[in-house]
Amino acid sequence: SALDSVAADYLVYSEEVQQAMSEGKPIVALETTIVTHGMPYPANVQTARSVERIIREGGAVPATIFIKDGKIRVGMTDAEIEALAQTGHVVKASRRDLPVVLATGQTASTTVAATMIAARLAGIHVFVTGGIGGVHRGGEDTMDISADLQELAQTEVVVVCAGAKAILDIGRTLEVLETLGVPVLGFQTSQFPAFYTRDSGFAAGYRVDTPDQVAQIAHVKWSLGLRGGLLVGNPIPEDAELPPADIGQAIEAALRQAEADGIVGKEVTPYLLAAVERLTEGKSLQANVRLIENNAAVGAAIARAYAARG
Amino acid sequence: SALDSVAADYLVYSEEVQQAMSEGKPIVALETTIVTHGMPYPANVQTARSVERIIREGGAVPATIFIKDGKIRVGMTDAEIEALAQTGHVVKASRRDLPVVLATGQTASTTVAATMIAARLAGIHVFVTGGIGGVHRGGEDTMDISADLQELAQTEVVVVCAGAKAILDIGRTLEVLETLGVPVLGFQTSQFPAFYTRDSGFAAGYRVDTPDQVAQIAHVKWSLGLRGGLLVGNPIPEDAELPPADIGQAIEAALRQAEADGIVGKEVTPYLLAAVERLTEGKSLQANVRLIENNAAVGAAIARAYAARG
Amino acid sequence: SALDSVAADYLVYSEEVQQAMSEGKPIVALETTIVTHGMPYPANVQTARSVERIIREGGAVPATIFIKDGKIRVGMTDAEIEALAQTGHVVKASRRDLPVVLATGQTASTTVAATMIAARLAGIHVFVTGGIGGVHRGGEDTMDISADLQELAQTEVVVVCAGAKAILDIGRTLEVLETLGVPVLGFQTSQFPAFYTRDSGFAAGYRVDTPDQVAQIAHVKWSLGLRGGLLVGNPIPEDAELPPADIGQAIEAALRQAEADGIVGKEVTPYLLAAVERLTEGKSLQANVRLIENNAAVGAAIARAYAARG
Ligand SMILES: [Mn+2]
Ligand SMILES: [Mn+2]
Ligand SMILES: [Mn+2]
Repeated sequence: SALDSVAADYLVYSEEVQQAMSEGKPIVALETTIVTHGMPYPANVQTARSVERIIREGGAVPATIFIKDGKIRVGMTDAEIEALAQTGHVVKASRRDLPVVLATGQTASTTVAATMIAARLAGIHVFVTGGIGGVHRGGEDTMDISADLQELAQTEVVVVCAGAKAILDIGRTLEVLETLGVPVLGFQTSQFPAFYTRDSGFAAGYRVDTPDQVAQIAHVKWSLGLRGGLLVGNPIPEDAELPPADIGQAIEAALRQAEADGIVGKEVTPYLLAAVERLTEGKSLQANVRLIENNAAVGAAIARAYAARG
Repeated sequence: SALDSVAADYLVYSEEVQQAMSEGKPIVALETTIVTHGMPYPANVQTARSVERIIREGGAVPATIFIKDGKIRVGMTDAEIEALAQTGHVVKASRRDLPVVLATGQTASTTVAATMIAARLAGIHVFVTGGIGGVHRGGEDTMDISADLQELAQTEVVVVCAGAKAILDIGRTLEVLETLGVPVLGFQTSQFPAFYTRDSGFAAGYRVDTPDQVAQIAHVKWSLGLRGGLLVGNPIPEDAELPPADIGQAIEAALRQAEADGIVGKEVTPYLLAAVERLTEGKSLQANVRLIENNAAVGAAIARAYAARG
Repeated sequence: SALDSVAADYLVYSEEVQQAMSEGKPIVALETTIVTHGMPYPANVQTARSVERIIREGGAVPATIFIKDGKIRVGMTDAEIEALAQTGHVVKASRRDLPVVLATGQTASTTVAATMIAARLAGIHVFVTGGIGGVHRGGEDTMDISADLQELAQTEVVVVCAGAKAILDIGRTLEVLETLGVPVLGFQTSQFPAFYTRDSGFAAGYRVDTPDQVAQIAHVKWSLGLRGGLLVGNPIPEDAELPPADIGQAIEAALRQAEADGIVGKEVTPYLLAAVERLTEGKSLQANVRLIENNAAVGAAIARAYAARG
């Protein structure tokens, strides 16, 4: 299409992704905010690689997405992951940042929203992340609501996550998703998961039990011209789940510290994740690794099921 | 168009609607949440039929919409209305639910949002309902806002109603519609109606006095490529209006009961409507029947006016 | 395109704009709410003309937009500006009003949202205004949020302003713009300006230093198919800036008066602007003139830079 030809100027594919596309193989997009802001070094690099490996073992091809030299890069080499992880103060690019970082030739990692956009431009239908953004606690007053939710309302990608980031207001995040008409599916659960724990206390819109059900729902949605994505909530494995009370207390403490330290804007989420990691003595980081690896396996299976539908 | 050909797989027309389409007759879409959740049996079936009859008497063809066996059904036989009314625990499908209920072959009724989508896919320009969804009372805090408002912002259908459902926060509902750029027209009134009563105390954006004015405004809007619908607020007939103080007290009491009973999510609206009916000793149900019949007559006239414009 | 041919029925170009279009000259759109509601006579007419003159001196062609006799007029003669300024009680048309005022043949001025729509229909990429609408103070409770923000999220125009109108809640306005994915650029500043003053206390998303940078960012955004506009915050010239404490007090006093007088809806903004002018003994009006003239110069330069990119 016309879009494809213009967009092509701004998209650069890795050799592996390029070949997968020409062969019609299932592809799974991955974000890089986890590398630059979500996890400390070297866990970030190790996780980025293990997630890619799990996707390959699942019969799909990983397409880790970042911005370099004014191009959206689709597919990353190990050396590029390492280099991004080592770069200090990388911009975390969301929808609003994309045109700026591309026009000014910056290096940037991509949020859930920006990765969805890139996946859509590249024709990739499935995207795996840890947790999406949402309504911040107190967001009914501050109006601090992640652009990820609007992106889910408009960009045609299946997003596999373990819930919204646990520092958010999950109930209000689900309200906004309902208002925006985004299907929220619980993968082998009727409850929406809560990132570090399996049950947020809120119901998912629907329970699905197989990757093919997700693929079929996506296929129907997009065939009808119903724009936007689908959110798949895939709970953290039982043996990796943190005790709900412990993680709840750590998040509360981290929120108090952030307020005391006057952290605002896009600095809030990375600050809180780091604080929670300290307060749980690293257990939150281990859980984060496990849940995203688990999402990678499910995402690969959904990508295969979607590709099999043609 | 391409969309039409793909969407065709998911749309099944009744014989009456099919014929009306081939003859270019004016058609009016109707929703079925009123059958499954909005009214008790047998008033729901009687009203669905009387509304269809009024539309036919008004020179248009009714297209009552529901979901059956993974297809959007456009046009319902009397037997199908009866069967839907008799089915227990039918899903009430909104935008987010549509792909799921279609992919999984469920039976479902359609909300205002889902009926707008179906009407748009079927090329039907006018849709009659009782009251739209909106901002729930307390929604500035809970963020509980119906997907109907977002649908009005994006889907090209004229929606004829007697206001927002009376249990909602009408002022904030109108604020959201203003923010989203949806034209709100008062039909033969400069006030936005309040469902069981004729005047919500809030102004409609504009007063229109004839069906042709509505048709003309819709025509201009869509000709300019301004996406989304138009909301026509058509007040309940004077002789059917409930005393504002009585209905206000009943709604307040119903809201207190719902809170005491811990009702949340998509169960809230049906619960409140049933409670209000009990508290008004059935008068709210009578009013509900009268207002939707009144809307049907106006909707048929608008559909004729729109069709006459070509 | 199909849209262009249909929209053409509702768009009437002035001779100057028509010729500029056929010669591919850079064009800058201007709104007329400033004429009908934003400034008193004769300052409104003088400013409308001086802004046009500055745009011509900057090497671009002004396209002042209003509604007359059911047509969107693109480009205004001096006599038409005078006539609009002399007309009493002109409708201030936003997105929701456009189809109504066109269908009913009214005369109307255009808000930021409606001017963006008209510019987009006419193929004009740059639009200069004083200040955009946004979240009203208390809007987290009242849900009173200008349609301008939604328009920025969906309509492809560069909007040059001196910030949001100072009577608004600037922090929450920026939160909504972030949620909606709108790039917010500070022109030769890293702070978002505050209309009468140069620094709102809130950061702009990015600092840009040249018109060409803005043009390049817009070009990338739209090439990628990322819908919506860009907001350029161009601070009031230093020598025109009002003392922050003085203007802050005037706004607070005006807000108290508006509440005491029970002003609501679309009357609020004109009421507050007039009250602030009285309370500052006309200094706010002088500042308003200076900031929009300053925006005109920057807007002309951006239009030239955008046109130069092809
Ligand atoms: Mn935010
Ligand atoms: Mn709700
Ligand atoms: Mn408003």
